[in-house]
Amino acid sequence: MNASNLTTHYAPLQNDSFLRACLRQATDHTPVWLMRQAGRYLPEYCATRAVAGSFMGLATNTDFATEVTLQPLERYALDAAILFSDILTVPDAMGLGLSFAQGEGPRFATRVHDEATVAALAVPDMAKLRYVFDAVTSIRKALKGRVPLIGFSGSPWTLACYMVEGKGSDDYRLVKSMLYSRPDLMHRILAINADAVALYLNTQIEAGAQAVMIFDSWGGVLADGAFQEFSLAYTARVLAQLKKTHEGATIPSIVFTKGGGPWLQEMAALDCNVLGLDWTVNLKNARALVGGQAGGPGKALQGNLDPNVLFAPPAAIQAEVAKVLESFGTPHSGAGTGPTHIFNLGHGISQYTPPENVSVLVDAVHQHSRRMRQRGSI
Amino acid sequence: MNASNLTTHYAPLQNDSFLRACLRQATDHTPVWLMRQAGRYLPEYCATRAVAGSFMGLATNTDFATEVTLQPLERYALDAAILFSDILTVPDAMGLGLSFAQGEGPRFATRVHDEATVAALAVPDMAKLRYVFDAVTSIRKALKGRVPLIGFSGSPWTLACYMVEGKGSDDYRLVKSMLYSRPDLMHRILAINADAVALYLNTQIEAGAQAVMIFDSWGGVLADGAFQEFSLAYTARVLAQLKKTHEGATIPSIVFTKGGGPWLQEMAALDCNVLGLDWTVNLKNARALVGGQAGGPGKALQGNLDPNVLFAPPAAIQAEVAKVLESFGTPHSGAGTGPTHIFNLGHGISQYTPPENVSVLVDAVHQHSRRMRQRGSI
Repeated sequence: MNASNLTTHYAPLQNDSFLRACLRQATDHTPVWLMRQAGRYLPEYCATRAVAGSFMGLATNTDFATEVTLQPLERYALDAAILFSDILTVPDAMGLGLSFAQGEGPRFATRVHDEATVAALAVPDMAKLRYVFDAVTSIRKALKGRVPLIGFSGSPWTLACYMVEGKGSDDYRLVKSMLYSRPDLMHRILAINADAVALYLNTQIEAGAQAVMIFDSWGGVLADGAFQEFSLAYTARVLAQLKKTHEGATIPSIVFTKGGGPWLQEMAALDCNVLGLDWTVNLKNARALVGGQAGGPGKALQGNLDPNVLFAPPAAIQAEVAKVLESFGTPHSGAGTGPTHIFNLGHGISQYTPPENVSVLVDAVHQHSRRMRQRGSI
Repeated sequence: MNASNLTTHYAPLQNDSFLRACLRQATDHTPVWLMRQAGRYLPEYCATRAVAGSFMGLATNTDFATEVTLQPLERYALDAAILFSDILTVPDAMGLGLSFAQGEGPRFATRVHDEATVAALAVPDMAKLRYVFDAVTSIRKALKGRVPLIGFSGSPWTLACYMVEGKGSDDYRLVKSMLYSRPDLMHRILAINADAVALYLNTQIEAGAQAVMIFDSWGGVLADGAFQEFSLAYTARVLAQLKKTHEGATIPSIVFTKGGGPWLQEMAALDCNVLGLDWTVNLKNARALVGGQAGGPGKALQGNLDPNVLFAPPAAIQAEVAKVLESFGTPHSGAGTGPTHIFNLGHGISQYTPPENVSVLVDAVHQHSRRMRQRGSI
């Protein structure tokens, strides 16, 4: 089989603004998508979830996963789709038993807590994650080339947090106790996680994902020094194993570390295309630090509106969107590569968000970013 | 009355290492104290609290507050005492009704949420906070000059978070909705809070506090731009009103913004002596950025060990303490002023901390920091 045969499975891409911006190429507007854009703030999502019975009922069913992934694209002029799934599917496939109790976060039936439970860990058989890859292929087909599809995983450290804590935490006492008391066990968990995440993302790419994102949701809770050793190094280990191209297409990779602002300069050395930023980061400074120059190396930047802006009236949303765009400044234009920006929230959208406010945001990003380019070209 | 009459109320200070380090003066060891050092990890604290019946029962009773403030000093060679109280006493005195349900965080009976509840706010009569000032005077006397006493308050923004949310929050949706929707209301709350906090801290100083600390526990949840406008500006408004001296003694001020690392350079402009840092901050970089040079202006730095290190075995605690001290580097020595470091955790000590591990930490700080000075003077 060859690339040209395989690519004909899918319709040609109509809106490549997201992929171009990932690769630091010029676009006529700043592309926008939202973390958790298929979620509980959408009544149609809640309706589908009610039929599916649970979050994992949605995620493990190809038709449901496809349906909810496309729901926000029906409402909003978003420039990318993201696989509907969870960051914790990999440890679930390792046999830890993921569940979501109503109104609570994720929880594992088995907690990794000592030598024996660490020794029992292994890179899972990807057959156990087939529901994810089937969803990727189904969504890619259903998109019909409208926008590209992003695959994703939790980072090795973020997975380890949940695997050791057994659920979310507000102090990370258990996972940090292991880190400081038994760094050998923590390194073993992280090495397995990194290899599992790399295989998982590569299989998503083979299934049709056109970009991949690593969510280091809990990297920012680590101390300086510990972050580099226990999170960044294993994100790098994932990236070193990732497919850079598939069937002739470049597959951009995005790393998002919530609270990672203090380590931006060190993250610039990661072998990825895009760095995701939360709202505490000043985009102008971040661009100066890691965005690079036209023709030179650098990272595209993704982010970083506070999701709580979406509770404000339309005029305030428009003003805050403009602030974020202006903080980054006019992106690269013309041929070749240079600094680019992908608009997003600095974290997942709140379940309480009024859906109509998302329209205001998306339209404001497109309109204001077009105006900036016109202004910039005068 | 004059200063010399009043200072005779209290015994002369025997260990001034904390106050000297606050003022960027040389000390023979790095002083150490721990945020929340009088707390639930100490069995004797739990015993006193059981007698008092509740957290506020402790805080509002002069004898209990004095007793628990001194408890950690009996166990550990700490270089400062901190008033036993809560950051939320000021909004309680504004009439919002603070309480602590068993096993939960603080909660207000009344929530500030609209024009009417904002309009009703005013700087409270300090008579309502007399229990705090009485505790300060009682503790200062009971200390008999062993170590200095730190007074404190929540920052205007951190108080506003609790006043608008009514309790702790994991997304700050209500307070940020107000911030983005009705910035006028938010500014009014913050202005009142700032004036109230300044009066509160000045009255603590008059009652005997020898240094004051502003806890901006939730500053770090704000977006870049919003932090400067809604937190930093009002911390500055407090500082502008603070007494710099009392009865001939300089009263150092400390500002601690959890998650404030991204804005360290802007915080350098605050009219305070010390900046508190959480564990995400690299102390070497922070010293280079804001620590100043010998003879020049700058801030003393306080922090920043991850409290979870205290769950590790003694050798690991000692190693992590050394890492923090070495990251800052050898402090200023000799006459005049220069870069100094006050050792602390990057946040409050966990209630689950084994008390014997705190001895390991305090002794490690003293021993290793003395070794560094000897090494530095060779």
